[in-house]
Amino acid sequence: MSLSMYAITVPVFTRYLNNLDAILAKAEANAAERKIKPEVLPASRLAPDMLPLTFQVQSTTDRIKFVLARLTGRTPPSWADTEVTLADLRARVRTALDYVASFSQADLAGSEDRPVTLKVRGEEQSVPSVPHVTLNAIPQIYFHLTMAYAILRHNGVPVGKGDFVGG
Amino acid sequence: MSLSMYAITVPVFTRYLNNLDAILAKAEANAAERKIKPEVLPASRLAPDMLPLTFQVQSTTDRIKFVLARLTGRTPPSWADTEVTLADLRARVRTALDYVASFSQADLAGSEDRPVTLKVRGEEQSVPSVPHVTLNAIPQIYFHLTMAYAILRHNGVPVGKGDFVGG
Repeated sequence: MSLSMYAITVPVFTRYLNNLDAILAKAEANAAERKIKPEVLPASRLAPDMLPLTFQVQSTTDRIKFVLARLTGRTPPSWADTEVTLADLRARVRTALDYVASFSQADLAGSEDRPVTLKVRGEEQSVPSVPHVTLNAIPQIYFHLTMAYAILRHNGVPVGKGDFVGG
Repeated sequence: MSLSMYAITVPVFTRYLNNLDAILAKAEANAAERKIKPEVLPASRLAPDMLPLTFQVQSTTDRIKFVLARLTGRTPPSWADTEVTLADLRARVRTALDYVASFSQADLAGSEDRPVTLKVRGEEQSVPSVPHVTLNAIPQIYFHLTMAYAILRHNGVPVGKGDFVGG
């Protein structure tokens, strides 16, 4: 397996979205067992001025969508942020998994050498794709993914690092 | 900037360790302001059965050390896990930054095509380097890095995602 833009994105996003789905499934089962209403964990936070689990899942999936769309010049689909329950969040993750699966090695071929276009404060900017992906897009995806895990862990859902790394 | 094992490791680890140092510096200043003893935040957790901030910083730096050593065939240095205060943790991060800075593009050249040797349950295993780095090593580094941030955020240290992404 050689190093390519495909190798550092599609298989990684597929694995970690599947792991996120499995973590949300454990949260669903645990909430049912503890008789916690289905909308409570999605609205949970680590600090009152932090965004809740729902946002962390929306942001993880949106950032994965945007980076793949940018690298290939596709127009990203719009996903309404209407999730309320853990089941809704799992459906959002599955939608993202389907989108990731629509990208082949050929779709991403050469994208390491093409700049991507970002909107920075309303202005379009062209930036080299490799530092954009490695220093910004991927770290932000892991940030929100880990924050989703951390919110559930803090709220007593029995998940461990094995669930995060999975695979 | 082309895609290489160097591009997805050394500049990324350098940036995110510097950001971690800056986050720990904010925690130090905030703890002093709130008259929190210097050993309290390092011992903080998000759940009683989770490892504390000290471990998250040790694990982040150790995993960065191990992946670079494995990719280049170097013997990793041993770092004693004796940190107690935030100042100790910042020193640990600076030690890791110095170690990362000792790897050049030439040191990592070709490492994408060479397997790495891992110890799995006491047995040495040879695995392809690209999936090891992209699917395992890097996600685990971001996991512990984000968990360090999350513990401080939960404990009222005024940090935001801008501090995490930095640069």
